This record gives sequence, structure tokens and C-alpha cells, in this order.
Amino acid sequence: MLFVPQQVVVQKNSPRGVHFRRAGPRQRVYFEPEDVKACIVTCGGLCPGLNTVIRELVCGLSHMYNVNDVFGIQNGYKGFYSSNYLPMTPKSVNDIHKRGGTVLGSSRGGHDTHKIVDNIQDRGINQVYIIGGDGTQKGAYEIFKEIRRRGLKVAVAGIPKTIDNDIAVIDKSFGFDTAVEEAQRAIDAAHVEASSAENGIGLVKLMGRYSGFIAMYATLASRDVDCCLIPESPFYLEGEGGLFEYIERRLKENNHMVIVVAEGAGQDLIAKSIPVADQLDASGNKLLLDVGLWLTHKIKDHCKSKKMEMTIKYIDPTYMIRAIPSNASDNVYCTLLAHSAIHGAMAGYSFTVGMVNGRHAYIPFHRVTSTRNKVKITDRMWARLLSSTNQPSFLSKEDIMEAREAERLANRLPVPASSSEHTKKHSASVLSNGEK
Amino acid sequence: MLFVPQQVVVQKNSPRGVHFRRAGPRQRVYFEPEDVKACIVTCGGLCPGLNTVIRELVCGLSHMYNVNDVFGIQNGYKGFYSSNYLPMTPKSVNDIHKRGGTVLGSSRGGHDTHKIVDNIQDRGINQVYIIGGDGTQKGAYEIFKEIRRRGLKVAVAGIPKTIDNDIAVIDKSFGFDTAVEEAQRAIDAAHVEASSAENGIGLVKLMGRYSGFIAMYATLASRDVDCCLIPESPFYLEGEGGLFEYIERRLKENNHMVIVVAEGAGQDLIAKSIPVADQLDASGNKLLLDVGLWLTHKIKDHCKSKKMEMTIKYIDPTYMIRAIPSNASDNVYCTLLAHSAIHGAMAGYSFTVGMVNGRHAYIPFHRVTSTRNKVKITDRMWARLLSSTNQPSFLSKEDIMEAREAERLANRLPVPASSSEHTKKHSASVLSNGEK
Amino acid sequence: MLFVPQQVVVQKNSPRGVHFRRAGPRQRVYFEPEDVKACIVTCGGLCPGLNTVIRELVCGLSHMYNVNDVFGIQNGYKGFYSSNYLPMTPKSVNDIHKRGGTVLGSSRGGHDTHKIVDNIQDRGINQVYIIGGDGTQKGAYEIFKEIRRRGLKVAVAGIPKTIDNDIAVIDKSFGFDTAVEEAQRAIDAAHVEASSAENGIGLVKLMGRYSGFIAMYATLASRDVDCCLIPESPFYLEGEGGLFEYIERRLKENNHMVIVVAEGAGQDLIAKSIPVADQLDASGNKLLLDVGLWLTHKIKDHCKSKKMEMTIKYIDPTYMIRAIPSNASDNVYCTLLAHSAIHGAMAGYSFTVGMVNGRHAYIPFHRVTSTRNKVKITDRMWARLLSSTNQPSFLSKEDIMEAREAERLANRLPVPASSSEHTKKHSASVLSNGEK
Amino acid sequence: MLFVPQQVVVQKNSPRGVHFRRAGPRQRVYFEPEDVKACIVTCGGLCPGLNTVIRELVCGLSHMYNVNDVFGIQNGYKGFYSSNYLPMTPKSVNDIHKRGGTVLGSSRGGHDTHKIVDNIQDRGINQVYIIGGDGTQKGAYEIFKEIRRRGLKVAVAGIPKTIDNDIAVIDKSFGFDTAVEEAQRAIDAAHVEASSAENGIGLVKLMGRYSGFIAMYATLASRDVDCCLIPESPFYLEGEGGLFEYIERRLKENNHMVIVVAEGAGQDLIAKSIPVADQLDASGNKLLLDVGLWLTHKIKDHCKSKKMEMTIKYIDPTYMIRAIPSNASDNVYCTLLAHSAIHGAMAGYSFTVGMVNGRHAYIPFHRVTSTRNKVKITDRMWARLLSSTNQPSFLSKEDIMEAREAERLANRLPVPASSSEHTKKHSASVLSNGEK
Repeated sequence: MLFVPQQVVVQKNSPRGVHFRRAGPRQRVYFEPEDVKACIVTCGGLCPGLNTVIRELVCGLSHMYNVNDVFGIQNGYKGFYSSNYLPMTPKSVNDIHKRGGTVLGSSRGGHDTHKIVDNIQDRGINQVYIIGGDGTQKGAYEIFKEIRRRGLKVAVAGIPKTIDNDIAVIDKSFGFDTAVEEAQRAIDAAHVEASSAENGIGLVKLMGRYSGFIAMYATLASRDVDCCLIPESPFYLEGEGGLFEYIERRLKENNHMVIVVAEGAGQDLIAKSIPVADQLDASGNKLLLDVGLWLTHKIKDHCKSKKMEMTIKYIDPTYMIRAIPSNASDNVYCTLLAHSAIHGAMAGYSFTVGMVNGRHAYIPFHRVTSTRNKVKITDRMWARLLSSTNQPSFLSKEDIMEAREAERLANRLPVPASSSEHTKKHSASVLSNGEK
Repeated sequence: MLFVPQQVVVQKNSPRGVHFRRAGPRQRVYFEPEDVKACIVTCGGLCPGLNTVIRELVCGLSHMYNVNDVFGIQNGYKGFYSSNYLPMTPKSVNDIHKRGGTVLGSSRGGHDTHKIVDNIQDRGINQVYIIGGDGTQKGAYEIFKEIRRRGLKVAVAGIPKTIDNDIAVIDKSFGFDTAVEEAQRAIDAAHVEASSAENGIGLVKLMGRYSGFIAMYATLASRDVDCCLIPESPFYLEGEGGLFEYIERRLKENNHMVIVVAEGAGQDLIAKSIPVADQLDASGNKLLLDVGLWLTHKIKDHCKSKKMEMTIKYIDPTYMIRAIPSNASDNVYCTLLAHSAIHGAMAGYSFTVGMVNGRHAYIPFHRVTSTRNKVKITDRMWARLLSSTNQPSFLSKEDIMEAREAERLANRLPVPASSSEHTKKHSASVLSNGEK
Repeated sequence: MLFVPQQVVVQKNSPRGVHFRRAGPRQRVYFEPEDVKACIVTCGGLCPGLNTVIRELVCGLSHMYNVNDVFGIQNGYKGFYSSNYLPMTPKSVNDIHKRGGTVLGSSRGGHDTHKIVDNIQDRGINQVYIIGGDGTQKGAYEIFKEIRRRGLKVAVAGIPKTIDNDIAVIDKSFGFDTAVEEAQRAIDAAHVEASSAENGIGLVKLMGRYSGFIAMYATLASRDVDCCLIPESPFYLEGEGGLFEYIERRLKENNHMVIVVAEGAGQDLIAKSIPVADQLDASGNKLLLDVGLWLTHKIKDHCKSKKMEMTIKYIDPTYMIRAIPSNASDNVYCTLLAHSAIHGAMAGYSFTVGMVNGRHAYIPFHRVTSTRNKVKITDRMWARLLSSTNQPSFLSKEDIMEAREAERLANRLPVPASSSEHTKKHSASVLSNGEK
Repeated sequence: MLFVPQQVVVQKNSPRGVHFRRAGPRQRVYFEPEDVKACIVTCGGLCPGLNTVIRELVCGLSHMYNVNDVFGIQNGYKGFYSSNYLPMTPKSVNDIHKRGGTVLGSSRGGHDTHKIVDNIQDRGINQVYIIGGDGTQKGAYEIFKEIRRRGLKVAVAGIPKTIDNDIAVIDKSFGFDTAVEEAQRAIDAAHVEASSAENGIGLVKLMGRYSGFIAMYATLASRDVDCCLIPESPFYLEGEGGLFEYIERRLKENNHMVIVVAEGAGQDLIAKSIPVADQLDASGNKLLLDVGLWLTHKIKDHCKSKKMEMTIKYIDPTYMIRAIPSNASDNVYCTLLAHSAIHGAMAGYSFTVGMVNGRHAYIPFHRVTSTRNKVKITDRMWARLLSSTNQPSFLSKEDIMEAREAERLANRLPVPASSSEHTKKHSASVLSNGEK
């Protein structure tokens, strides 16, 4: 059995040039269409685009390969062994991409490798499409390993899902664009509330447990934000160069301000400010660690102590963002991901699918789960944000040097050599018309 | 005067690897901030994001380089010599990105190189930012050449604008994403109208004089479209494999259908079907060449001749799409374009700015105006569209071979050699876990 | 069999005080729930809210009266005799109110009283819900008369539908609010196009064949419109006080303007300006009588003759407005209409349902079909519009007197007597605190 | 000085028929336009439409009466004596209706009658437009009384603002429609979250401290809500017929549910469930009394105790609703209110303006502040809601009788007499064609 010439995708910024298979249809397929019995599962929190991916898997299998035996697993991993499998047809999924959420239901946890693979084996499933985040892809890898151990002819295709956009290797996760777009509503509301009051502060918490991509892009897109706080860039409240000082200055200049905070920002500060006992308290725990509420109280207390009159409005749009249908751009992206997944599974591969350096690729499971994408605070995009908000960097010079060094090591890039040979006279440049 | 090491952007799909300067801040700038007198002009039709680009040019010059002498040229090129220059400040442009259109006004034509450069010279302008399409960039090149001829120290920065996304070299033009998003409304309406009638047809005309990018992406994003017609893929109405046959089949299967047509599609057919005299008729001319109206009448006539009862609703959302404010994704993109343009102009370059292969670059004017991007109908994206709509390709095999050869020559790619060394056994692939 | 005390609704502005039954549940119902076999049909053009009315009829019959034998007639009146009846359940209609259009399909014409009543009789239908406009309600009346003639125990309930809001007697038709809201998009786009050009004119055609309610309310809601033309208020183009003069003045003052025109406005002018032969031309006919296109050409020609440079953009959002789902306010209204219809039909009445003077009522069919609501140009709302747009009234004093007299006669209101006894001193009024 | 014949508005449901002056232009005005010096203030929380009212006051005074001396008071009542007065022109307010919030700024409190009237007197202000809620109108009344006491020729016009729609006497407050519309987003998100999980509950808190109008109408408009809790209808959690029982049943039937709760609902229950000490706690107080958070915890605890697995997502869209611009319907309404206020003030009246029984009227201040509108749970609208959600009424029969009696007394309506003369035979009714 032959395959078409493999094109290769090189991972950007990768020192040793990790190469992945390029996604796409193969000349020969591993499975006979009439033998395929596929199933789809969605796990973890909601993300715009889940239903589009489901729809395109079902429709793509049917239209591109004439595969019509497709089932939905209900409510996440545990649905493999505890619920009926839902038959899915192009007709039954025809309009689901116009709805948010997932028609299959989702849940966290419930991963029991043996029970799952038993059910896959017993029911004769030979293609498993698993849509979910970090943990879910780890689970997919476990399933793949167990399948290989048992010698089953089953392809496992992971489609990484994370609204936070923090999955490693891949350029962008589906739903991210939609989330940034929808976040604008909350920022607009915060801006209106803030600017309609005297010394008004609007505070918006956005998704991002470990990385601040949504907060950063939403801030850049809005232009109404005065301060953006993300997990990657530590900040402090009191003293010179601290958040409180900046708030006071900004209110004095402009009478109002808007702060965007990623949910994972400042967790170290919160931990410090709350007695350990309280952190462990079962029901109160989550509430207290909400950075938005915490920051609201801290700012209020500070202003009170300074006898500054002000109004603060805190908005948490998380569920309103997660639950909307995907926008046009994400719809196209979800379609491409689903089609790539189908081509790979039909070719008999097991993999996580994703766009790497602008091209769709098949990526080994362990690559996407071993690390996590983060905003590089030494990078241009964060610099652009700082220039757009005018907020302080909250970083000492040492912090920056450290961050730079850490990044250099991570990428194992050679230290730039003397760049003198690149220098040019500026008078020439005016005439140069941009070409090198 | 020294510059930072130049990074280089390689144009994708480029045989000889055309290289451009990478956009970004330079270590030394050509202009002293206090000497800079910049002006901004917008030309041609509306496009979402114009105001964001204007805003970010004004704010970026002020915040990044402390340049505060910025003027707006009103109503396009002719505003250089026939109107007052508007002083612009970060405050005066603070909210304009939330509005569609252009606060500067725009117009077509009015390019008079000598008058324009005379005014630039007389008023002491030394940075000219020109936002506009194909023709506008040609005009910018003329201005640049005249400036060079006169030996003036003036940087000319072009920011390419085309809602059609057909500007050569660059990956994507600003406003395109927003246009595709907004086009969904019209397609949705067409779908509702079509599906609420017996044998209902919804016909939507979208922008795209020479290229069908908006039509293609809007179709892919919607999943409700049964047929997408673009300038790059010729089609015919009558006979086997023609549009009429497809319409009849689709209505029989599904009772309704949605057609998306790019404004430049089928112009050859229209020209043929209308007597030359009528084409030349002053007032009727434009009307008759509207492919949407023409197609509506043709389909009606055909169904009448076949005694098929049907209803057709034609929607032309062009102005409603052009006039909306840019979405979050385009807002970020416009910001990056504006910032790149500023860094380049401050460095004393003259260029068109754009994203090439994922990186922002400074491109010589002539590169972006000499050709035009087109949908490659032998490419994957068009194949995906065909698979998603199930429409016929309207192409004979020879057409396809021809198209492929034309493309190969254009790209001067070597014919792929025997690919046997890449073949693999499929049984291995199941175990391979996606890594090459 | 007894009924609850009938409350009575008095028609506003009605000289002899026509009284209607107040809608609502009756103490005793005419039909046994288990005997009811109901059907629903939608006729005519689309209107936001059709699916909500359908949904609430099905759900209301089931939840309020435990009636579960409900059928949908497909594609309008002709569906009574030419298609299968669709069984409908609360589950099958659960989400349809989120979609535009009608899930039952619709069509114009196809009314054949005998065939329809034959089918009603043969299939044992005893409640017929008919959703449609003027003509459709006339058809419902014919069906009702034929049913009475045959002595059948069948209730016929009409639910008047007209996006134009021109159905007589009733306060407001469903979908009107949504239409006015959605029209804002088109007006906004026209405003952006107009204000981004020099001497830019944005022209928007809105629904309203015989009455200008949508145009008037959309204009009042927008505040960006400089001129609103409706069928009720004749206008002329040339000469003093004409439209052209106003356009010239407005462009001189403000550089751009927005015109809203109801589709039925100026039909007399168009008819005059086009040779009879052309009006009769089959295919060209409709096109030529489009007031928007006609006005566009007329304005262009006028400006050309005056050598005025200008740009005009014409937007026809009709189908994009008709096809959207109803907004919250219309959803509530549709629900109330459906429930009123159900209560009336269950009580054995035949009627058209509607809100009269703020209360839901059962209205005899002939009342709503004999006349048509129109904008009263002597009324306050039109005066408010004129004051908001500053447009000329295009009316001579005699026109106004005539209109007033016509209205007085129509309403048979007594001429106001001397009002001297109502006069007050103004100094008192300051102290009066508003109470009479 | 003479006035036009006064038309009179009768308050609906009013036993003794309280009559108000009908709003509108008067034949003679009290003030000479050139003498008028008007000011506008906005107080209290945000509400969609504030900027439209401000815009129409400024534009209406200018266009209708040629009054051009108009000032904005900044940040609420205290702005009368502590800030500069902002000159406002039709041009400066031209686009503000497209923005949410208030361009004047707002605040709570700050009412100091003497300081305010001193400033009005010293600055020669003779028309004061006061936009705000209950408390603000009380303040307006105080200002009016002080002005009368001092014998100043100053008209005070109140424009009642309450997003909750609970101001007495008037039919509807501006912004309410917009709020109900925008609430749909939150309910949709809650529905998606709930239905994408196993035993998912979506909980949405909507505005309504003392009355549940927004919650009731948003529930009726959505059709996705299973339970709506408002202050007017007490409920309980435990036991037969309680909320927990209903939740369990609904989840069993449907696997998910959506609950809408007005912020003022269940305050008695919360008070009982929290130790007094905790209620008094300064910082925790507000948090603990948030009915949404409280209910979330209560439901979680209950399900835990019953070992029911479930997911609950709590959404508080308050600020996102308050801060949006008004929709078309509210824009028209705000315009009419502003114009009525202007006509009244120009006639020299002092009053609160509002629509009463479908007509705009001038209402004495004390009338609108003495009581508060509430949802009548014995009324049809609430019955419709109960029938639409199928939720239990949480009321015993005695509760209902009590409520009915209370209402009867409030309205002092005569007990309906024997209604036997109205009874009809049902066979007749089929033929009756709806007319009485």
C-alpha cells in the first residue's frame, strides 16, 4: 500500500527543526470506507466551535469518504462506557454549527483507559475522534498506547481544544478568535461603566489560567484598556511602579480606567494575601481565589485608605464567551481541522491535528501535552500591548534579562553575532524602496 | 548611522526566494521626532478597518515616537491640493475605530503626481501614509518616484487596502475577516428566504471583481451554500454539467438552495448574452452587468421555460458589509500594520507594508501592484469548498490540466520527482504516532 | 354552557365605539381537548416572528389545553390540498423561534376555498390557525363562511401578519419592532457610506407598500436620516420646495445626507416618468418600478445636469430584514397573540386576533380587511419626524387642510368646540405640579 | 396668556380616575426662547437610553424652540455645586445616542437641595431637566418645592429612569425593552452551558430589586427558561412544592435546566440563612446577599447531600446589560419623552413626564415616588409565564386569595356582579365571528 509523497511541516522557532507530517488526503487510505465505524467525543469546558468540528467530522466522513457509520459519545470520556452511542448523520448535524456548546455534551474527568478501550474493541469502533484540551489529549495518548498494546486496528485522532490558546506546538486553537471578539462586549461595557462615573474603574476578567493570550489580544483589539494583567507578567500592588500607583495616576489623568485581568494572573499575590486555612476551605476556596473579586476588594480597600472616592464595576463574562457559536473565521478553521483529522485517520495514523507554522500537520500526542504555550513578555506582541496601554511593565531590569535568558535557553537559539555587516546608511534607505 | 541587524522575510511559494525587509522598529531612526510632519490619506472604496489604521497611525506616532504633527488629507488624493489638511491628535481619533468608513473621507481618482508632490514640498510634509488599493499603491509609487527625483527627504508608506483580499505578495488584507463575517448575515437571510419557500433560491452577490476570496471563505464558513461562483472558475448555464442542471437537481433533492456569486464571476457570459449596443448604453450599462441581477433573470427565464415553479430572492449586501467597523481580529491586524508602517517611515524607508508568510515586511511598491492574488482552483481550499457544497466543478479535465500547468509555470516549481522513496506501509503508520 | 363575563375592548378613535370581545381564556371551552385536531398555515411574505407564533400555538395547545393533535400545512394555502400535513409537537418546534422565516414554508395565492374546506372536512380538522396578511385574512373569512354554510364545527382563527404594520384596527403587527430595529443596520451603513464621501448620499429603501410605518419609525430611531419619504406624504422632485432643492441645500450644509424611502412612496411619480409600454414590459416591469433604483437615477441625472459631483449608494435591505428571527419584544408579543388565538378557538369562536387599544381582542375578519392603517401626516408622530429630519413637508397648505378634513371625516370626530374654558394663566402653571 | 384645550390622560386601573395633563406642545409658551437657560443632569445607575434622552433634550430645545443655551451637569446632583457646567450643542451631542452610559457622568446621592437651588438661582438657570430613578425624582420634587418657596421662575422636568420598570403610574420606563433584549444573551449562554453538561443548571441573575419585570419578560421572550424567581412571588427551597424538588424533577425529565432570578428575589430566605453578624460584615455583606451566588451554593449543597452529580453555571450580566446603547424602540421612546419634557417645561410646568395608558402625560412628582410598580402575580402575564415555564407557583391557595384581595383593595374595584347576562351558548359563538 502506497502513500503520496509526504510533505513536511517544520515547527517554527524550533532549534533542531522538529518535523511533522503535513496534513491532507493520502493517495491510498488504510480503511475501506464501508468498514469504518467512527466515534466522536468532546471533553472539558466549552469552547466556540465544538459543534462545527463535530458537524464537519460527520459531514466530511460522509461526503469525502462515504463513511456513514458515525457515533457520538455523550458527556465526555465516561460516555464511552456509561451511555448509549448516538448515531450521527449529515442531516442530524446540519445546523448544529449555529449553536454554541456541544450537542454531545461534555464533562471533565471520567477517563478510564481500560473501560474505554474495552468498549471501543467490543463495539468494533476503528476511528476515534477526541476533541479536548491538554488533559484530554493526554487521555487520547493513553488510549492510543493501550490500543497499540492490544494490537487493535484503530486510529485515534485528537483535535486540540483550548479557548486559552495555550496548547503547545500549534499556531492557534479553534474558538480563540471568537472568544477575543466576544470579549469586546465585556470590555465595552466596562468602559461605559467606568467613563460614566467619576473615578470609575471597569474590571474585566477573561479566560487564561496559565497564559494571557485572550487578555492580550482582547486588549489590543479594544484600545479602551488601560492595563492588562496576565499570568506571564508578574505584578505587584503597592509601592513605586505598582498597580495602585498606576491606577491613581491614570484616574488623575483620565478620570476613569479599564483593567483586563486573565484569570490566572496574580495567583501568587492572592495566595500570599489569604491565610492558608481559608484557601483550604472547601466551599469558599474557589470564590476567594477569583482574581477579579480579589482585585476588586483590594482596589476598593486601597482607595478607601487613601480617601479616594471611586466606583469599581467587575465583569466576569466567561460563560457568556464560552457559550457562543463560532464566528466565520473559526468556522473555516474548524472545518480544516476536521478534514485534516479525517484524512489522517483514514490513512491509518494516530495523532493530534493542528496548524503549525501556517500549515496543517499531524503531531504526535506527547508533543502537544508536554509543554504549554505562553505569552512571551520579551516579544513584540507584548511590547505592542505595553505601548498601547501605557501601563508600567511591573518588571525590574533584572526580571527582563532573566526572562530573555530563559527564553533563549528554551529555544536554544545562538546568541546573535555582531550585526555590523547588516548596517546601512540611512540616506540610502530612503531611496531603497523597501527591497533588501 | 547604524541599523539593527535586518531580519528577512521570504515570500512563500516564491521560486527564487524574493526577500523583503522584516518590519519593526530600527535601532536608529532617520527622522528626529520633532521634525516629523506626517500626513495620512485614504483612497478608493470603503473597507472595514480604515479608521483603525488611521487611529493607530496617529496614536502610534505620538506614543512610540513622540511625533505630534500629524495631518489628515480629506477625500482621497485630490485632498492633497484642494482641501485643508486636518490636524489629528490621539484625542481626536480616540474612538474612531468603533465607526465604519473613514473619518478622512475617500474618493477614487484625483491623482495628480505633480500637484500632490508640490503640496507635500510646500507644506514641509516628510512622512506620507497612503491607505488604498491597487491603483492607490501605484499612485504612491509615482509619488515616491517624483519625491526621489526632486531629492526630497520624504518617506512614503503605503498600507494596502482591498476588501477583496487580492493584493499580490501579502498574506491577507485588513478588513477581509470582517467582510467574511458580515457576509454570513446575507447568506443566512438568503437561506431563510430559500428554505421558507417551495423551490426557493437565495442568491447573494459578494465582493470580488477579479478574485473570489470573500465568496469562497464566506461559503466555507456558512455551510448553507449549495453553489459558489467566482471569477477564477468559469462556469456555464445550459447543458450537461451546467449551472441550470445543478439547480434543478439540487431543488429536487432539497427543495431549496443558496447560491453565492462573486461580483466578477461570469462576466464573459454576461457580455455574450447582451448586445454590444446595450453594454455601451450609459445609464443601463452598470445595471445590466450586475451578475446578480443577470443571473436572477436567467434562472427565472429558465425555470419558466421548464414550467418549474420557483421563487428567487436576490440579496446584494455590498454596502452593508463595507461600511461596518472592523472586528477584533482586524483591529489587531490594522494596529500591527500601522505600527510597521510607522517604524519603516521613521527609519526613512519608502515601501508598502504587509504580512508576508506570517511576518510583517516592507515590500517595494511595484511588487504589490504588478500582479493580483487569485483563488487557485487547483488548490486545496477550492477543493474543500467543492467538497463542502457538492457543486460541479464546471470544468473539463483539460481545463484542470491547463490551470495546473499555468500555475506551475507561474511558480516555476520543479515537477515533482518520483515519490517512491516516501512510501510507507500503512500498518506501520498506525503505530507511527504522526511523527516523521 | 356558560362563559365568563365578557370583557369588552373599545377601538380607539372609533366614533361609534366599535366593541370587540376581549381575548383570554373562557370559563368553559367549546371543544373537548381530546377531540381537537388543529392545523396551522403561514401565507404570504416572510416576517420576523412567524416561527414564534407557530411554536406558541403548538406549545400553548399542548400545555394549556392538553391538545396534542396539531398539524402544519406546508407552503401556504395550497398546502391544504396538495401536500401532506406535518404532525407538530412541542418537542419538534422547541427551538424554531430562534430561526427566521417559517418552518412550514409559505407562498402567495393558492387559495381555493372549496378544496381547502373539503380537506378540512375530510381530515376532521376542527381548529384552523391562519397566519398571514390582508389577503390571507380575506381568505380566512371565505373559509369561515364556507364552513358556516356547511354547518361544520370548525373554529377559524386568523393571526394577522404584516411587516408593514398596516393592518386596520389592531395597534401593531408582530415583527414590526424587529424590522425597525434591523433597519438601523442599513441606515447606519448608508450613513457611513455617505459621510465617507464628498457630497455622499446614502439611500435606503424600506418595506411599506401602502404605508410608511417602518420608514417613519426607523427614521425616528436612527437620528441620522435627513429625509424620509412615505406613500402617505406625496413629494415632488423639481422646483421650489422639491426634493432636489432640499438635497442640494443639505449637501451644502453638511456634505452628506441619508434618505429613507418606503417602497410604496412616489409610485405616482415613477408611473408618470416611464412610458406605459415600459411599465407593461414583463421582465423589466418590477425593476423599473423600484422606487430606490428610480430615485438613484433621478438624483444622479439631476446632479449631472447641475455639474454637482456626488456619490450615491443605494441599499435595499428588504430580505435581510424579513428573514431575521424576532427580537425579545416581538417574541413576547407573538406569544400573547398565539395564546389569545388558542383561547378563542377553544371557546369555539372564529375571529382575527389582535391588540386593540392596548388589550388583546377577537375581531371579526371583515373589520381587519376592509381598510388599511396609514401614517397620519397630520398627526404628532409625523410632525416629530419632520422636526427630527428638518426635511420640507413637500405639502402646500391646501394639501394639509385636505388631509385634515379627510381624517376628520374618516373618524367622524366632532369639530373641537371653543376651548376657552380650558385656558389657564401660565404663572399658575409653574406652581401646578402637573396635575389637572 | 392662553393654552390649547387640555387633553386629559386617565390613569388605567385607577378607581377614582386620576387625571393628568396630556403632554405635547402648548399654543403659548411660558418662556421666551432667547431667555431660556436650561440644564440637564443624570443621576443613579446606568440605563440604556440616557444618552438618547440627553441628545433629544439638546436637539429638541434647539430645533423646536430655538433654545441654544443648554448645559450639562456632571456626575449627578453634586455636579450642580461642585463642577463646571458643560455647554451642550446639537453638534456636540450628535452621535452620543450610539453609545451606552451617560456622557454627563452619573452618581448616587449628592443631593443638597439648598446648594443646588442656590446654584440654579445664581447661574440664572430657568429649566432643569432631571433624569433619574425613584430617589432622584424625590430630589427633583424637593428642588421644585424649594424653587416655589423662593418664588423663582424655574421649570423642573423629571424624566423617570429605571431599568427595573418599577416606577409607579407610568406604563414603561425607557431602556426596559433594550434590557430585556440584551438579557437574552445571558439566558442563551446559560442554556448552552446547561444543555452541554449532564444535569447542567444555568442560573442567570437579572436586575430587579423590588420588582421582577425584566426577569418575567426576559423569561417569556426566551422560552428556554424553566424557572423564574421574582421578588413579588415568594418561594422556598426545601420540601414538597419547593424549588429543590422542582429542580430534581426537571433534571430528571430534561437533563438540564435554566433558572432566571431577579436580584431582589428570595431576600427573606437569604437573610434567614445567614447569621446576623455575617450580614453586618462590612466587606462580605454585599457578596453574601447576592441571591445568585447564594442560590448557586444552596443548590450545590443540596445536590451534594443527595449525591446528585450536576454542574451549575452562574451568570451575572448586569453591567453588560446596563451599559449598552438603547435599541430602536427605546430610541423612539426616549425621543418622545424628551420632547414631551421640553414642551412641558417651555409651557412653564414642573412635572415628571411619562406614558400613562398609552399617552404621554405630565405627572406630579409625588405620584411617581409614593409607590412602586410590581408584577401582579394574580395577573395574566404572570400566569402566562407560569404556563410557559411549567414551574410551580410556590404558593398555597391562601397565598393566592390573599394576593387577590390585596390587589382588589388597592384598586378599589367593585366585586364583579353576576355575569349571567353575558353568557352565551357556544354553538352561537362559532357563528358569531368575534363581534360582540
